[in-house]
Amino acid sequence: MKPLGPIPAGFSSVNGELAVQGIAASDLVMRAGDTPCFVYSSEMLRARVASLRAAMPSSLAIHYAMKANPFAPVLALMASLVDGIDIASAGELVLAQAAGMDPAHVSFAGPGKRDRDLEAAIVAGVTLNLESEGEADRAFGIGDRIGVQPRLAVRVNPDFDLRGSGMRMGGGAKPFGIDQERVPDLVRHIISAGAHWRGFHIFAGSQALDADSIIETQGKTLDLAAQLAEAVGHSPEHLNLGGGMGIPYFPGDVPVDIARVGAALAERFASLPPVLADTHFAMELGRWLVGEAGVYLTRIVDKKTSHGELYLITDGGLHHQLAASGNFGTVVRRNYPVAIASRFDDAPKQEANVVGCLCTPLDRLADKAMLPAADVGDLVAVFCAGAYGATASPSDFLGHGKAPEILV
Amino acid sequence: MKPLGPIPAGFSSVNGELAVQGIAASDLVMRAGDTPCFVYSSEMLRARVASLRAAMPSSLAIHYAMKANPFAPVLALMASLVDGIDIASAGELVLAQAAGMDPAHVSFAGPGKRDRDLEAAIVAGVTLNLESEGEADRAFGIGDRIGVQPRLAVRVNPDFDLRGSGMRMGGGAKPFGIDQERVPDLVRHIISAGAHWRGFHIFAGSQALDADSIIETQGKTLDLAAQLAEAVGHSPEHLNLGGGMGIPYFPGDVPVDIARVGAALAERFASLPPVLADTHFAMELGRWLVGEAGVYLTRIVDKKTSHGELYLITDGGLHHQLAASGNFGTVVRRNYPVAIASRFDDAPKQEANVVGCLCTPLDRLADKAMLPAADVGDLVAVFCAGAYGATASPSDFLGHGKAPEILV
Repeated sequence: MKPLGPIPAGFSSVNGELAVQGIAASDLVMRAGDTPCFVYSSEMLRARVASLRAAMPSSLAIHYAMKANPFAPVLALMASLVDGIDIASAGELVLAQAAGMDPAHVSFAGPGKRDRDLEAAIVAGVTLNLESEGEADRAFGIGDRIGVQPRLAVRVNPDFDLRGSGMRMGGGAKPFGIDQERVPDLVRHIISAGAHWRGFHIFAGSQALDADSIIETQGKTLDLAAQLAEAVGHSPEHLNLGGGMGIPYFPGDVPVDIARVGAALAERFASLPPVLADTHFAMELGRWLVGEAGVYLTRIVDKKTSHGELYLITDGGLHHQLAASGNFGTVVRRNYPVAIASRFDDAPKQEANVVGCLCTPLDRLADKAMLPAADVGDLVAVFCAGAYGATASPSDFLGHGKAPEILV
Repeated sequence: MKPLGPIPAGFSSVNGELAVQGIAASDLVMRAGDTPCFVYSSEMLRARVASLRAAMPSSLAIHYAMKANPFAPVLALMASLVDGIDIASAGELVLAQAAGMDPAHVSFAGPGKRDRDLEAAIVAGVTLNLESEGEADRAFGIGDRIGVQPRLAVRVNPDFDLRGSGMRMGGGAKPFGIDQERVPDLVRHIISAGAHWRGFHIFAGSQALDADSIIETQGKTLDLAAQLAEAVGHSPEHLNLGGGMGIPYFPGDVPVDIARVGAALAERFASLPPVLADTHFAMELGRWLVGEAGVYLTRIVDKKTSHGELYLITDGGLHHQLAASGNFGTVVRRNYPVAIASRFDDAPKQEANVVGCLCTPLDRLADKAMLPAADVGDLVAVFCAGAYGATASPSDFLGHGKAPEILV
């Protein structure tokens, strides 16, 4: 038997079924039109942003990294709840604008921005988080050519990383940002070139659950920003502190203690060095904001045993839930939180493997999990499907097509 | 320094650039319309099928598992070259029919077939490779309801696996097929239910390079088929031997010695037991047929150093080449064959990391590789992109969109 990850708070049951906002899983599937499907909860998204605002200093802006979930209705709701959106491509710029976000509150990070991506962002008035000196020069050239002053922040590759993070974005050679010791020269170059220097973007890692690690990293980030600003001799308008806060996916994971993170940040904000006294601070989050607010529902279409093991075979799979299958950035596969949605109140009584419909042994949704007795026709829920699910999976693989998504 | 995988045979250079069928990489990009793009070679596909036919017994049918590459022009060409197509979804059925393949030569394998998938396949006259007793019963019910006799083969979960295979599909509890000891009962049930029993599908693993392992597995497969047929008391019309032959991706990998595999199979075919004397045999291959005939071309858009390491940042990435990034079924990332396509004849002279444009440390195309001096604007080729590339990658991730594909 292998344990399942923890089911996020906020779900309930209706007539024995898993419910999202009081709507039973079977009704959600009818609304979506078919299984498999993704269901996102607007109440959970609102509550999540509200809980963060309550925990963080009021002066901290909250930005949404839309790569986590760019589904248009989710994005439109998030745009109405947060203070800014971070994009990672010109394609995302189009979506962010369609969602009604003011480009003045949009920033664009990502290595490998093409000239046409830079131009679209400069025309729109988006802040570019520069990833290299070469990118800066290309932005100047485009700004000159089209007669628009680029808004340029510098993404810093810090010498530290975020301890315990699922993905380290700093602390050594990286394709992201500019090594910290080269940053002051670049900022001076931006200012002397007549571009609008917006500040810094410092992002040391993601998917950390330990508040102490996040607090430590935020402290180092503020120290580094102050040190760089002193070296430059100018105060940054804006400092994007990155995010780093993860969500529990696996057995034993616990949610980030955001009250402690917020209290520590408030303490730091109360004693900022003069060079950061007028700086606006933002935290940029993707997964933490939307990950737990989504569930993937798939139907059991076959049930069989092989060599004494029970298999529940669903109409979903890794083509929609690559990370849940254990094939996206994980070395050892562990079970996400999974439940029999149509028997959500039933007690676990049998060990089963839940697999997808793809003809590959990689397509696993739960290994040797204790689950209620389930049969063909039952619905399976895979939780934590609100971030890096639908768009971070190979939906064309094997020709089953995309899963419908709904926001309730 | 980390080595690169071996570049497949069949590529050449024109004016110092990598060429496919004599067409230089820069011209291929113009034909495709943009970078990044996938280029598939019709000459290589034809040569591959021809080499297989020359090596294998003439009575062996060659089937194409279209999941490896369902790009319509590739599929249409393959349909004209092979004897059958294997599909893994109702979506692939539509594509196979559009490619002109006679449904009589199409078989449908895959756990988790929904009723509507079964019905579409039965109506079309496709052979269903049954994955469970429950699926058989559903097929009978649908056949009765619509008045069409289903064509049913039984997918066997063999007690053996394919030694050295990248993916084991047999030898223990599996979601695929029916444990071999239950197969005779199911075949009797199919025959007594009045369905058309087509035979067996036995698939023990994929992506093996060692001829001896493949020969051993094919021998066991023939033995098992004979044993099951004897137990049933009927000869199978058809036996799908599976595939199993892989392609070299990584340093040290060598191509399968198909001459040896073919000679061993011919020897076995010369002394078949009576119960298999009238059976038609097929080998089903995906990756081996198309994998080396494709190349992914992406352009360097930024070049920078971080902590002394050189990064070549391209406009491509794991959203098109998930497996090359090391994030699809691999535990330890190794380098695929990669080259600077626009300087294909230049000698390697610098160590570089080639990364994609996605804002994630997972997006790596080559780690610490020795490459010719390359700059912004140069083209990078990732080889072995003909199978499990475009459709096995999360093309919606970060909003960059799909890569154009062309068949030359």
